[in-house]
Amino acid sequence: MYQSPPSPGTRRPLPQEVAVAITCNGTTQAVMMATPQDLADFAHGFALSEGLIRYLGDVEEFELVEHPKGIEARFWLAPAQAKALGARRRIMAGPVGCGLCGIDSLDEAMREVPAVKDEALRLSGEEIASAPEALRAFQPLHDASRGVHAAGFLQPGAGVTLAREDVGRHNALDKLTGALLLAGTAPSGGAVVITSRVSIDLVQKVALAGSPMLIAVSTPTQAAVDAAEGAGLTLIARVRGGGFEVFSHRYRVG
Amino acid sequence: MYQSPPSPGTRRPLPQEVAVAITCNGTTQAVMMATPQDLADFAHGFALSEGLIRYLGDVEEFELVEHPKGIEARFWLAPAQAKALGARRRIMAGPVGCGLCGIDSLDEAMREVPAVKDEALRLSGEEIASAPEALRAFQPLHDASRGVHAAGFLQPGAGVTLAREDVGRHNALDKLTGALLLAGTAPSGGAVVITSRVSIDLVQKVALAGSPMLIAVSTPTQAAVDAAEGAGLTLIARVRGGGFEVFSHRYRVG
Repeated sequence: MYQSPPSPGTRRPLPQEVAVAITCNGTTQAVMMATPQDLADFAHGFALSEGLIRYLGDVEEFELVEHPKGIEARFWLAPAQAKALGARRRIMAGPVGCGLCGIDSLDEAMREVPAVKDEALRLSGEEIASAPEALRAFQPLHDASRGVHAAGFLQPGAGVTLAREDVGRHNALDKLTGALLLAGTAPSGGAVVITSRVSIDLVQKVALAGSPMLIAVSTPTQAAVDAAEGAGLTLIARVRGGGFEVFSHRYRVG
Repeated sequence: MYQSPPSPGTRRPLPQEVAVAITCNGTTQAVMMATPQDLADFAHGFALSEGLIRYLGDVEEFELVEHPKGIEARFWLAPAQAKALGARRRIMAGPVGCGLCGIDSLDEAMREVPAVKDEALRLSGEEIASAPEALRAFQPLHDASRGVHAAGFLQPGAGVTLAREDVGRHNALDKLTGALLLAGTAPSGGAVVITSRVSIDLVQKVALAGSPMLIAVSTPTQAAVDAAEGAGLTLIARVRGGGFEVFSHRYRVG
């Protein structure tokens, strides 16, 4: 009726997770569980999408430091940004428990995403329909252990040019964004392709990163569609069997 | 090549998300996106698994309040618990950005889960293998819109007796835990069944809630297996096609 896991030597390896603390100038900003590959990308992408940095020039020094219980991604920020962050933290501490009332914290959480500015990106229906298949070539962790999400960067005429993996779909996206930042590749030149569902926070992250299109294998929530509509982002989802659905700003397709 | 979403009247509805602020005695503890069903269950389960409350007696008053940008789940805690929470917050503010260094915040995030005490629960291989199918009967949101996770409570000889759904797998689990709390059902008397993968935080939540067994359709991470081993929790995963794998504390099976 049931089976044991095969012996360790033969069984499919399990995906890994490690605790990662993001610190800026000595203070922890967040602790998250993440798949231990590409943590420098992860830290930079998270810092960007959470507003800890605005661009690479805000980072004076960065290192990954191993501790007994996990890994510290240690940023030393330029003085101006560190000061701006400190001021913002005093205002924004709300969503995580330091005195903001319910209605103010809801306003903060649902703040509008700056509109995507790019008008130039176009991708053909064929490129979009084959994006998940193109992404498959960049998923070694998933091939080895399953249960791992991927986020890739799809450029017109070039296919998927870069991808990152993580147990968490938000983390996979942050890793991709960080890798683009560190490579000096402008996100506005391509679409983000993800293997997962689309909740509103993924739309917010993609829009903040500056990519004008998000392509997802699975389904979006209504809040994600509304946010994409409002941010000028083209949201495509349910990419399966050669077909897909366009939920917002269709003009970038074709 | 591609298709538009069908007209609103005919297309499969999208899963919904709404911002939920959990407040205790007027201060926001967390803001999360959640599927808007069973939010009282969600709030109570989250409060329990995050240590905001220890049992129902800590709650003097609870209400759901609609705001323009989302819903506030408003707890008024008994004075002793509110005081204890305030003291804990001053110590623990670290993981989310108020002064704790990297190594301290990693220690806090990876703190050991109290061991599961129950020794009595047993479930047969047949009950475990058929758990996902039994859970299917409790997934109306998933039937309507896909892309929604479920968490159910499986009791020996009784099958799945209660289940909750959410776009987020953590939220689905918190809703289940809260529903059990509000129903006065002891989690120690059954297993938690989830439709998703198992990361370490789900193991921590189940152990803290007091259920001795977690059954998942998909794969666990290595960190989740290690945490289950350490907490005395029976972790079963990859329940598919009549088979399953037992990753820790096998004695509760059979």
